[in-house]
Amino acid sequence: MFSPFDDPLTAPLYGDAEVAALFGTEAAIAAMLRVEGALAKVEGALGIIPSESAAAIAGAAGAAKLDPAAIGLGVAEAGVPVPALVAGFRAALPKEHGAWLHWGATSQDIVDTGLVLRLRDLCDLLDARLASLVAAFAEQAKLHRDTVMAARTRNQIATPTTLGAKIAVWAAPLVTHRERLAALRPRLLRVSLAGASGTNAALAGKGPEVMRALAGELGLEPAEVPWHADRSGMAEFGGWLALVSGSLGKIGTDLILLGQSEVGEVQAGTGGGSSTMPQKSNPVSAEALVTLARVSGTQVGGLYAAMLGAQERDGAAWPVEWFVLPALAAAAGAGLRTATGLAGSLRANPERMAKALMADGGLMMAEAATFALAERMPRPEAAALVKQAVKRVRDQGGTLAEALPAAEGIDWRPTLDPAGQTGDAGAIVDAFLARI
Amino acid sequence: MFSPFDDPLTAPLYGDAEVAALFGTEAAIAAMLRVEGALAKVEGALGIIPSESAAAIAGAAGAAKLDPAAIGLGVAEAGVPVPALVAGFRAALPKEHGAWLHWGATSQDIVDTGLVLRLRDLCDLLDARLASLVAAFAEQAKLHRDTVMAARTRNQIATPTTLGAKIAVWAAPLVTHRERLAALRPRLLRVSLAGASGTNAALAGKGPEVMRALAGELGLEPAEVPWHADRSGMAEFGGWLALVSGSLGKIGTDLILLGQSEVGEVQAGTGGGSSTMPQKSNPVSAEALVTLARVSGTQVGGLYAAMLGAQERDGAAWPVEWFVLPALAAAAGAGLRTATGLAGSLRANPERMAKALMADGGLMMAEAATFALAERMPRPEAAALVKQAVKRVRDQGGTLAEALPAAEGIDWRPTLDPAGQTGDAGAIVDAFLARI
Amino acid sequence: MFSPFDDPLTAPLYGDAEVAALFGTEAAIAAMLRVEGALAKVEGALGIIPSESAAAIAGAAGAAKLDPAAIGLGVAEAGVPVPALVAGFRAALPKEHGAWLHWGATSQDIVDTGLVLRLRDLCDLLDARLASLVAAFAEQAKLHRDTVMAARTRNQIATPTTLGAKIAVWAAPLVTHRERLAALRPRLLRVSLAGASGTNAALAGKGPEVMRALAGELGLEPAEVPWHADRSGMAEFGGWLALVSGSLGKIGTDLILLGQSEVGEVQAGTGGGSSTMPQKSNPVSAEALVTLARVSGTQVGGLYAAMLGAQERDGAAWPVEWFVLPALAAAAGAGLRTATGLAGSLRANPERMAKALMADGGLMMAEAATFALAERMPRPEAAALVKQAVKRVRDQGGTLAEALPAAEGIDWRPTLDPAGQTGDAGAIVDAFLARI
Amino acid sequence: MFSPFDDPLTAPLYGDAEVAALFGTEAAIAAMLRVEGALAKVEGALGIIPSESAAAIAGAAGAAKLDPAAIGLGVAEAGVPVPALVAGFRAALPKEHGAWLHWGATSQDIVDTGLVLRLRDLCDLLDARLASLVAAFAEQAKLHRDTVMAARTRNQIATPTTLGAKIAVWAAPLVTHRERLAALRPRLLRVSLAGASGTNAALAGKGPEVMRALAGELGLEPAEVPWHADRSGMAEFGGWLALVSGSLGKIGTDLILLGQSEVGEVQAGTGGGSSTMPQKSNPVSAEALVTLARVSGTQVGGLYAAMLGAQERDGAAWPVEWFVLPALAAAAGAGLRTATGLAGSLRANPERMAKALMADGGLMMAEAATFALAERMPRPEAAALVKQAVKRVRDQGGTLAEALPAAEGIDWRPTLDPAGQTGDAGAIVDAFLARI
Repeated sequence: MFSPFDDPLTAPLYGDAEVAALFGTEAAIAAMLRVEGALAKVEGALGIIPSESAAAIAGAAGAAKLDPAAIGLGVAEAGVPVPALVAGFRAALPKEHGAWLHWGATSQDIVDTGLVLRLRDLCDLLDARLASLVAAFAEQAKLHRDTVMAARTRNQIATPTTLGAKIAVWAAPLVTHRERLAALRPRLLRVSLAGASGTNAALAGKGPEVMRALAGELGLEPAEVPWHADRSGMAEFGGWLALVSGSLGKIGTDLILLGQSEVGEVQAGTGGGSSTMPQKSNPVSAEALVTLARVSGTQVGGLYAAMLGAQERDGAAWPVEWFVLPALAAAAGAGLRTATGLAGSLRANPERMAKALMADGGLMMAEAATFALAERMPRPEAAALVKQAVKRVRDQGGTLAEALPAAEGIDWRPTLDPAGQTGDAGAIVDAFLARI
Repeated sequence: MFSPFDDPLTAPLYGDAEVAALFGTEAAIAAMLRVEGALAKVEGALGIIPSESAAAIAGAAGAAKLDPAAIGLGVAEAGVPVPALVAGFRAALPKEHGAWLHWGATSQDIVDTGLVLRLRDLCDLLDARLASLVAAFAEQAKLHRDTVMAARTRNQIATPTTLGAKIAVWAAPLVTHRERLAALRPRLLRVSLAGASGTNAALAGKGPEVMRALAGELGLEPAEVPWHADRSGMAEFGGWLALVSGSLGKIGTDLILLGQSEVGEVQAGTGGGSSTMPQKSNPVSAEALVTLARVSGTQVGGLYAAMLGAQERDGAAWPVEWFVLPALAAAAGAGLRTATGLAGSLRANPERMAKALMADGGLMMAEAATFALAERMPRPEAAALVKQAVKRVRDQGGTLAEALPAAEGIDWRPTLDPAGQTGDAGAIVDAFLARI
Repeated sequence: MFSPFDDPLTAPLYGDAEVAALFGTEAAIAAMLRVEGALAKVEGALGIIPSESAAAIAGAAGAAKLDPAAIGLGVAEAGVPVPALVAGFRAALPKEHGAWLHWGATSQDIVDTGLVLRLRDLCDLLDARLASLVAAFAEQAKLHRDTVMAARTRNQIATPTTLGAKIAVWAAPLVTHRERLAALRPRLLRVSLAGASGTNAALAGKGPEVMRALAGELGLEPAEVPWHADRSGMAEFGGWLALVSGSLGKIGTDLILLGQSEVGEVQAGTGGGSSTMPQKSNPVSAEALVTLARVSGTQVGGLYAAMLGAQERDGAAWPVEWFVLPALAAAAGAGLRTATGLAGSLRANPERMAKALMADGGLMMAEAATFALAERMPRPEAAALVKQAVKRVRDQGGTLAEALPAAEGIDWRPTLDPAGQTGDAGAIVDAFLARI
Repeated sequence: MFSPFDDPLTAPLYGDAEVAALFGTEAAIAAMLRVEGALAKVEGALGIIPSESAAAIAGAAGAAKLDPAAIGLGVAEAGVPVPALVAGFRAALPKEHGAWLHWGATSQDIVDTGLVLRLRDLCDLLDARLASLVAAFAEQAKLHRDTVMAARTRNQIATPTTLGAKIAVWAAPLVTHRERLAALRPRLLRVSLAGASGTNAALAGKGPEVMRALAGELGLEPAEVPWHADRSGMAEFGGWLALVSGSLGKIGTDLILLGQSEVGEVQAGTGGGSSTMPQKSNPVSAEALVTLARVSGTQVGGLYAAMLGAQERDGAAWPVEWFVLPALAAAAGAGLRTATGLAGSLRANPERMAKALMADGGLMMAEAATFALAERMPRPEAAALVKQAVKRVRDQGGTLAEALPAAEGIDWRPTLDPAGQTGDAGAIVDAFLARI
């Protein structure tokens, strides 16, 4: 249980059952068998292997039961699971048909195409979760379109914004991630079929035909130039997974900060209790988003190392992907699951929000005061006046409204009402909603 | 000179003058001033600031000379260059106009939009270089479409391929990188204009209008939802830069291996001499491609850390981009420059290629022999016969053709001719050429 | 099975059963229970909790059977396993004793000290393996102290060395790694016991006493300043694990290159066969060393992110360690296991070595010729003469000995005998052997 | 200006002039010349080169003026600066002496030993800064030994601690970093002198003698086994640099959080102003510590990639160090400079601290109440009673003291006084002070 993604002690927090299923041992074997079955089928149809053998192989591929431990021993010998997988499957076939199994393919073709089949399911799964999460945030953004609260910049209370605008900033990148995913799918979801040295020599000139047929059979894109040694598609996808986790980690960061004892303006999820400090409400889910983002950001580098493989096929760089991609997928999957729970349960604490807006005598409205004064005088003068007023509030207490120059004929109360100073916050919500 | 990208000792190898110009101090200042000028111009046109002030600011922005050291001191105080930049520029303007400078913007708007302007030039530059490099490789791929050589898989001689196919595998991802770049440009090349807390409160409801006008003025996309705290566009672009460097590093890896003393099949660039070993020809340029790829793969993680900023604007996570993006850009730029030199000077050594194809009595044709025999007997039997022949060659010398069973009625000479066993190598070249 | 370290398909190559046992679910639970038992014992002895309760808890800690799934649900709620673990253990104790369980500790104390107990076993295990590996290399270095072969620098044949010197360069850092480990152990193998906020407030002034007693009981160092929020010990250890994997990866890199078809000078392990290319002998084990090194180098960054936790205890940065440390440990463990197999089975191919030494007419002896001539003339002149001779060999064939100026009265045969030009290679072996 | 470490716009915040001097072009050249001079001197003394030539070379090495641009062109050709450096230096020497320059060394020897000389100065510089920083924190820890404030765990107010204890937790790892540095120095500060292939063949058996003499001359350790291809010393040192930056980043994280508008309990440095929000005080220096830590954590991975060099000397992996080490050094240097400024100017805001301690009716004392009650009843019952009281305070307001069961005969006022509940906070300060 080397990974908190599947250790039973931690998987309920950091893991994801659906993603786990896609990257489990069984799914890996089943996908490789499916590729072998489909390959036989199209090779049979194209007259490359006997049609009865093709039918026998294709028919058995879905039902074959292979021993993972035996394949594992094969990996220790060969570095790839396919020789042992083929041997095991062949042993279960009538001898005359088994001879035609894996015809013309190389191990990496089977491993990569099998992986791609599972990545397709992963893309579907994550895209659906992104859609759900965006929808949940859209609901909250609508609900809180005009929920005024303090913005914080550089960990300081800044000027007013709305919770809706904050949510729109969280969720808009998720919409973009869906667009990114749609764009990269055809670059990722491609068949690998190029044979021992990438030339499909064993298919005797029928390589392109088999490729197209196999792509059709599996519902994937054909790859006319082999990608045994071009791992940019995997690196791009891994980068996308980390982008998703990064955007979720940003949301987690904000929720932790908004849920601090001293802030308490937004709650989401059920706070984790402390065995000895009953007053605490730990932001467990939000923390998990940050943890998963950090873990993801750390992993991505491995995919760039995996690009530096030697010559036609490499056995040292390529397998780095096997360590990195499942982790990135699990992080994104668990993160989306967790974030959807947070989005659905998110609730505002208007009292605490009001308190922050009024903190320090309303100093946060200093910018608004500056801009109001600047309509009557050069901005540097306006800024200087406001600075003096801020100093007065700091030194002597009172409110900004009291400390500002009354003589300028400005009615400071509405000017300094946070609700009137949220700028385009509503428009930001609308712009986000218009994209989904 | 903390970086080999611009240390005069190393810049000729690892640096790139054009990329350096984009990320230099002067370019950074000029771009920020350009944004301030354009902002004033559109605000003047929209009646937000006086039109004479707008004209004065816009007119002076291109010519203002600011002291980098003074801005640097401002960064030490404020963490961002804009307050000192604005102060310096304002001091150069008539007082009544200077007051309207930077109207409604926040520092991050200016820094980010200024960066985006330079990233647009960078995109253009790198795209053009990718195009040139692809063209250079296309020439070589055509030339070597049928140059037969040994493929190597897992650092072992495998079966025949062609140099053309090898080049197509190198270059096809570069074509895809251009497509990736075209797709991400609108997500990257966006104006940032959202004001202190991301709501453009100071623009009093005219934020969206100013955004659209400024985008038009600068030739960038508008961003209706602020991206102060959504750094996914930068992380995506950094990932793309590292993809480019990764693909080039793969080419470098192969060129190093092909240029080994024991291989010597392909030369590219002028080999670096050794002061004490005159026989050596070090693959300096190819090594640089690998170095730059490794440096890039290491940097990318920083961009995911930069995504985890706090709340509306962050001063600790965001600047991580300033360390990482220029390095990634420089690596991609220097890599493309270097690779183009290698592509243009690449030359085959047919003698050495032939030697490898004939090595060990032609054992590399074992796969071809197996497939030929498999047309006459079940494949496992064919494989067993070939294995025996391989063993005989290994133990007793001679060639594979001599060791194979003569009785099967196969004329082994043409079957075992590498030139006849390059499979789809030519088609792979054609498929690559068809994409450009 | 998110990790190739424990997926049955890949664990035989990339995994390690002994390391896996240390990081398994059961070991994690048992270690935490052991800490709770030891804590109760020393608190009983110090009169902090009733001695019968202490005895009951300490007695039951070794035998308690807890349900991992139940603890996992607790982690989803609390972010740490301890509340559920304590609840489960308490339920198995008589009520009057259970109340005194976990007295004064915070969850992180138990998790961290439990981890440290397992890390101690890991340190012992890896140190023993390093010792075995060093011993195996020492045998080989002795055996091949004078096995002359070509050195390669920058992937070019350079001048002669010996296999023994090469092995000494591989193995000397492993000796240093043992020294590094011995030095860091006291910084790593420390008790964590600081209570909710790091002050042991609940121990009412007896914190230091309990710390010392618990350290004695567990055979660990005491930590007078709490390390809840100082993760430098873990980051240092993770860096050490990656150093080990890095040194092994360097050995793997060299073995891959030495085992290339075109080189074939050193073999180690049993080469992995190819299903379709019977002549191949893939360097599976050596590749695994490189893969594990790359995976490790990628992970380390996470430990530095984990250092940036907030305030007294952090729930977002700290758990990053849980993802990274086990992976680094598994990689080092599997790497050492694999490398020991390679070291034991390493064998030289003197024929191939001789072939390389004589390649290109013996051009690799050019440096030796330069130095011999330089005893008779200024070095630049000597270098120029040799350069001419090298050119003659390159252009016209023949050997360097023939091409060099006969007139200088040098007997070129012994001067150009590689066996006479291995410099301090033997002394390097001796220096390595003297360290172990 | 690819790096914010030396761009004039950002160097005042992120750079460090003293570290910059060590890694500047001039210092690099001077250090390499110093190595060449020392090598000539010891070779002269050992009779390997003529003593007049040795004197001439050694005498000129300190004063030679070489053109960086010319060396840079040499790097583009050779991948290393030494051939051009040697050529330039030789041209400045009388011909008969110049011939003996660089006798027996290889480029990497000069580059690495030259780097090590500068790293020694770096070690001295950083160690002195660590000492100053520890001293500054020691002052503050003494001053605030009993300054009671709220601890925060998982971003929630937890129980009382003191500012002194907090500072001790920050500073204790810095003391350990000094110990780590002292331990690694002899592993890092070693001469590299092994010649073309690592055997010192050109020194004709005098390699070990020259090594010892050169080590003595330069004040470095000798390295009997060459480390051209063993980069673990550099990776270890880079890891140490990142540990330093990580510990400083943790301090920065805490200072940002303690300086939030809503907390404001500790101030350090002069807050950065905002051009438009005069009430803000941005934690610029603390943010820089976090930025530098994140940048460092990202870089370290490169050093592990650099370990995977090929064979005797490598030109692709090794130079990765040139990109990474200076950046790590600059980050640690700038971080220590910045942290010392923060430590010296750190000041507590007792009012804000008191406010936090009393927040929510004193709920933070819940743990103390539980432990007090647990002296009279089983702990689960105590915990349940306190939980009820907490709920009452949350639902109905009032204080914890009022809500707790009066009947138990506990005088809640002293029990719930935070100042009486800081546990071992004072002892933690004392333990830290005892270490320095």
